Amino acid sequence: MEALVLERKDELKLRDIALVENLGPQDVRIAIRTVGVCGSDVHYYTHGGIGPFIVRNPMILGHEASGTVIETGAEVEHLCVGDRVCMEPGVPEPDSRETRLGMYNLDPKVRFWATPPDHGVLRPSVVHPAAFTFKMPDNVTFAEGAMIEPLAVGMHAVTKAGVKPGDVAAVSGAGPIGMLTALAALAGGCSHVFITDVIQQKLDLAAGLGPITPVNVREQDLSETVGELTGGAGADIVFEASGNPLAAAAVFEPLAPGGTVVYIGCPVEPVALEIVAAQAKEARILTIFRYAHIFPRALGLISSKAIDVKPLITDDFSFADSVAAFDYAVHMPPASVKVQINLPV
Amino acid sequence: MEALVLERKDELKLRDIALVENLGPQDVRIAIRTVGVCGSDVHYYTHGGIGPFIVRNPMILGHEASGTVIETGAEVEHLCVGDRVCMEPGVPEPDSRETRLGMYNLDPKVRFWATPPDHGVLRPSVVHPAAFTFKMPDNVTFAEGAMIEPLAVGMHAVTKAGVKPGDVAAVSGAGPIGMLTALAALAGGCSHVFITDVIQQKLDLAAGLGPITPVNVREQDLSETVGELTGGAGADIVFEASGNPLAAAAVFEPLAPGGTVVYIGCPVEPVALEIVAAQAKEARILTIFRYAHIFPRALGLISSKAIDVKPLITDDFSFADSVAAFDYAVHMPPASVKVQINLPV
Amino acid sequence: MEALVLERKDELKLRDIALVENLGPQDVRIAIRTVGVCGSDVHYYTHGGIGPFIVRNPMILGHEASGTVIETGAEVEHLCVGDRVCMEPGVPEPDSRETRLGMYNLDPKVRFWATPPDHGVLRPSVVHPAAFTFKMPDNVTFAEGAMIEPLAVGMHAVTKAGVKPGDVAAVSGAGPIGMLTALAALAGGCSHVFITDVIQQKLDLAAGLGPITPVNVREQDLSETVGELTGGAGADIVFEASGNPLAAAAVFEPLAPGGTVVYIGCPVEPVALEIVAAQAKEARILTIFRYAHIFPRALGLISSKAIDVKPLITDDFSFADSVAAFDYAVHMPPASVKVQINLPV
Amino acid sequence: MEALVLERKDELKLRDIALVENLGPQDVRIAIRTVGVCGSDVHYYTHGGIGPFIVRNPMILGHEASGTVIETGAEVEHLCVGDRVCMEPGVPEPDSRETRLGMYNLDPKVRFWATPPDHGVLRPSVVHPAAFTFKMPDNVTFAEGAMIEPLAVGMHAVTKAGVKPGDVAAVSGAGPIGMLTALAALAGGCSHVFITDVIQQKLDLAAGLGPITPVNVREQDLSETVGELTGGAGADIVFEASGNPLAAAAVFEPLAPGGTVVYIGCPVEPVALEIVAAQAKEARILTIFRYAHIFPRALGLISSKAIDVKPLITDDFSFADSVAAFDYAVHMPPASVKVQINLPV
Repeated sequence: MEALVLERKDELKLRDIALVENLGPQDVRIAIRTVGVCGSDVHYYTHGGIGPFIVRNPMILGHEASGTVIETGAEVEHLCVGDRVCMEPGVPEPDSRETRLGMYNLDPKVRFWATPPDHGVLRPSVVHPAAFTFKMPDNVTFAEGAMIEPLAVGMHAVTKAGVKPGDVAAVSGAGPIGMLTALAALAGGCSHVFITDVIQQKLDLAAGLGPITPVNVREQDLSETVGELTGGAGADIVFEASGNPLAAAAVFEPLAPGGTVVYIGCPVEPVALEIVAAQAKEARILTIFRYAHIFPRALGLISSKAIDVKPLITDDFSFADSVAAFDYAVHMPPASVKVQINLPV
Repeated sequence: MEALVLERKDELKLRDIALVENLGPQDVRIAIRTVGVCGSDVHYYTHGGIGPFIVRNPMILGHEASGTVIETGAEVEHLCVGDRVCMEPGVPEPDSRETRLGMYNLDPKVRFWATPPDHGVLRPSVVHPAAFTFKMPDNVTFAEGAMIEPLAVGMHAVTKAGVKPGDVAAVSGAGPIGMLTALAALAGGCSHVFITDVIQQKLDLAAGLGPITPVNVREQDLSETVGELTGGAGADIVFEASGNPLAAAAVFEPLAPGGTVVYIGCPVEPVALEIVAAQAKEARILTIFRYAHIFPRALGLISSKAIDVKPLITDDFSFADSVAAFDYAVHMPPASVKVQINLPV
Repeated sequence: MEALVLERKDELKLRDIALVENLGPQDVRIAIRTVGVCGSDVHYYTHGGIGPFIVRNPMILGHEASGTVIETGAEVEHLCVGDRVCMEPGVPEPDSRETRLGMYNLDPKVRFWATPPDHGVLRPSVVHPAAFTFKMPDNVTFAEGAMIEPLAVGMHAVTKAGVKPGDVAAVSGAGPIGMLTALAALAGGCSHVFITDVIQQKLDLAAGLGPITPVNVREQDLSETVGELTGGAGADIVFEASGNPLAAAAVFEPLAPGGTVVYIGCPVEPVALEIVAAQAKEARILTIFRYAHIFPRALGLISSKAIDVKPLITDDFSFADSVAAFDYAVHMPPASVKVQINLPV
Repeated sequence: MEALVLERKDELKLRDIALVENLGPQDVRIAIRTVGVCGSDVHYYTHGGIGPFIVRNPMILGHEASGTVIETGAEVEHLCVGDRVCMEPGVPEPDSRETRLGMYNLDPKVRFWATPPDHGVLRPSVVHPAAFTFKMPDNVTFAEGAMIEPLAVGMHAVTKAGVKPGDVAAVSGAGPIGMLTALAALAGGCSHVFITDVIQQKLDLAAGLGPITPVNVREQDLSETVGELTGGAGADIVFEASGNPLAAAAVFEPLAPGGTVVYIGCPVEPVALEIVAAQAKEARILTIFRYAHIFPRALGLISSKAIDVKPLITDDFSFADSVAAFDYAVHMPPASVKVQINLPV
């Protein structure tokens, strides 16, 4: 089949690739319809790897996907041919310690689309376990369906934080994950969210998404701004979504005593953390890795209109223009958030 | 001052009453502006008591209130004369075991407006601890401010339940507390709420408040209806807000395995609970008593537009017509939800 | 093989039964060494069923078991021939909603030893999934290993309750599960446990197991006794392990405000619960069903001597005397707690 | 009265000091009997300050204390003259946000013994709020009572971690707090604790306290050692009690996926934390500051014999030898853990 193949660092081709995928009794075959371009896809393209994951063989990119079921395995009960679906890109071992405990995202043997050595889904079809394939409500579009994956990251952060109704949150970093985390925080009960960045266009976009106060940290101090709304108490939760080591170290000052920090972004180097400053507030610091048990919940909140991801889908390309889409994503204009690629129906 | 005084069962008068209230250093004096009529006020009027709380002396009614600060004690820092405020009607002992543990609503010595022997606030002014008086954001009206108290009950239920983003909830009982609980559940992260009642007008009103499915239990089965949306799994949370012993016993069938029941309503007689049915799902059953630490959070969600209580304020009366307001509330039409009484500015 | 077969109500035989058990790649074959007699085994014997589970075909009894691995499937890694093991009697579907969420005990399709239509293990050997078979530390005996199953019930209750160091607990019912719950509560952090019963011999035995105060509810009031130790506050946790509907309804009076009730016992009829009394304390009421993820933890606490179950193993019989063992268990003397049956080495 | 006064850095005197302490209606006056020497006391002596807390005026040292009530305020109900007691050294504002929420230890205005500008209790008597004074059970000695304060730190860590029965923990640092944390972890449900240090004598002492495996990190690798016991899973909880920045950065390798880290020790410089390593395990990182609501619980566990602190009280001095006691503590031999000072009866 024709697929978007990363041959090696800097070399991306839309070309035929031989793939044989057998349909197991609990699998479905899905015609891919929409795939979002993630920062990790771009990073594999421009760097040839992410940390220990090195692209050693040609690999199909793409893991944020929606599509239509075109074939079902013999034991599949909850899906039918024609169902519009989105898919979790990671599939764990059913018998690992972590899977058994309900935290399958932490299974060290998980296989994940577009993570070497596993292919992604910028291609016409894929075979996937039905258990990780989710039917979309009628009022959810393919474009929204392909946003469920990054939204799930933000929702997982909000879920683990245990947001309480009326919490005030701060999100550092107004990239796609930061903005989706802000939306998830509001849908999850926050009455107000502060979001920081240094790019004004991103902050302007974020400010239009709800009761969100943008804070340009080149000009404003987050702690002061949060303090004004909260009578000096601070934010109940700080979500770190920038991955910037300096931002990651600056999470305790805007935090309320007894508050929670969630590290979503992945700093490439160690973060110099003032443990004593955290202790003075008994900060609870959570770290997250992807998500678990979130996809149907994310679909529910999109369907109920509690979360609207459409303003974040700023650019779309046809599958034939996939390489151009990636080159665009490499040099994304500041007002762009999410690039999607649509496959032919 | 002139006040709405319950002289005894069935005898309510707007009349002068001698009250001397000294302003302590940490108190404020508040000119009352709006007071909601609660079912408990009506019950004291029609029955002369609620359980162990018997009206033995004339008592001013009313505990859902907003107003304006007109005097501040010497040590009050966070409030000024002219501030528009709403108030928690219960004031605990600062040194009780429960207060110290952060659950001041459970302090057995708590004093609560319009609960014998303590007067309520259907009167021109009241002295109250500043710590239980909350400044309202500019975009919150006095009418909304007087809804914070019943809303706090629903939000406390949602907070204790630990609603997770994308949960599905069922609320039994579409009275004021049931509807406010439904709104709080949606604001707190639920993607969908089912609400039950036997009065169709209340269900019709509830259905217009958001992604809420009304279930008339005279005609429909709640478990079946919930099962259709959830693929048979059931509701993550069931909020019992009817106080009806039969409804209170029927909470486990619509519940998902691992789900949570919250008893908000107060059944007057013991509830025949099938413990074995609860065990098969490891149901977690929470009970709540009023609320704690909720008022500023409720104000935040009203101000951010996450919760809109205005459709529930169906009737208002002037203070001069207070007795008529109560007689109306005793025989409330099915489409009415909340009656409020406004005092002169 | 020879097995203890319940032919039908009241008819128990040690006789040959034809069983073919194939060893799957992730299974082990275990030579059974010790099997405890559970109240449910006895109930099947004397009543021919428990609730919806009716004995329609001859069924081997026994589910509290330890033994030795005698054969391992091709993919089994963590067990070897010769390993001394104990086994979880319930095996869930790996792909059910409940199993995925980490609460496999709630999987409606779980298969459980000696629960119709599944055979138990009062027989020389059984094939079992390695994932539900646990190697015992060297200092844990077969007799102790066969106590892990009932101990797991108590530990699951303590785990779900979230016992905090220094909590005070009350256990209602001094049967095997009540006593094991008391031991688990102490090992889990309680500083003191009260245990109730009406049989003085059981209370005397319990009193010797640790800092446990026996309360004969024919003569003493539990709430008063708890109040004396706790300065009137009440018990942080009440474990209901009697299954008696009256005891199950009386859990709120001895409870501290903010406390937790755990229903372990299974009342055969509805329990008349005073919801209002629970609400005044915001009681949190948990219900449990068997256990999940507990066996290795129970082995750890037996091995470390934090829990000593040996005083509870009051009677043992040889496999040849299995029918006599059951007849003894049907009319168990008050000072007896647990009957075990040992198979030949 | 005669007191142990730190005049300034390096200058400690037992001398008369004029102190007038009025007894408020909710206070008690306590004759001090035993005071433990804490590392912070020693640090004030040798450095003249700790972080922002500088000794600018002569200050009495000592905050780990037990004694006897000799006078009670008019409103005190739960204590009598003659009661043997121990005391929380920190007293918060009753109306702060943090106190109201139940986390009074985080109140920024808390006053704490022997923390500038507040005097400590190495003196014959002190006036203290009855609410922070706790009657000791008859079987708890004054020496044990003076250990409750440091034990409370470890118990608070264990309580916040939410230890589950059968957890395996690692404690880094075998100083007094590390050892008390190990004891609290075992009493709180851990089946096994690993403890690290570089001083063999301390490890030898720790190894005798229970199911504790000492790990000399000069010679052994903690992760490997933990892995052997846990089948490679890792420790459920890592308590960092050394305050060493390198140890504080090394907490994720021995941790199980889904595990918890608690920072108890106070590193003087920022800790270089590998956030990505934490994320791969979704580590939950808690930080603690002193304790709240722990003293009566600690007394309960000492009284029930679940925790035995006596082996840690290695040295005692008379009040007359207080200066010598401190000089001893400055150069403490490796096998010493806790120095206590006894006042005349």
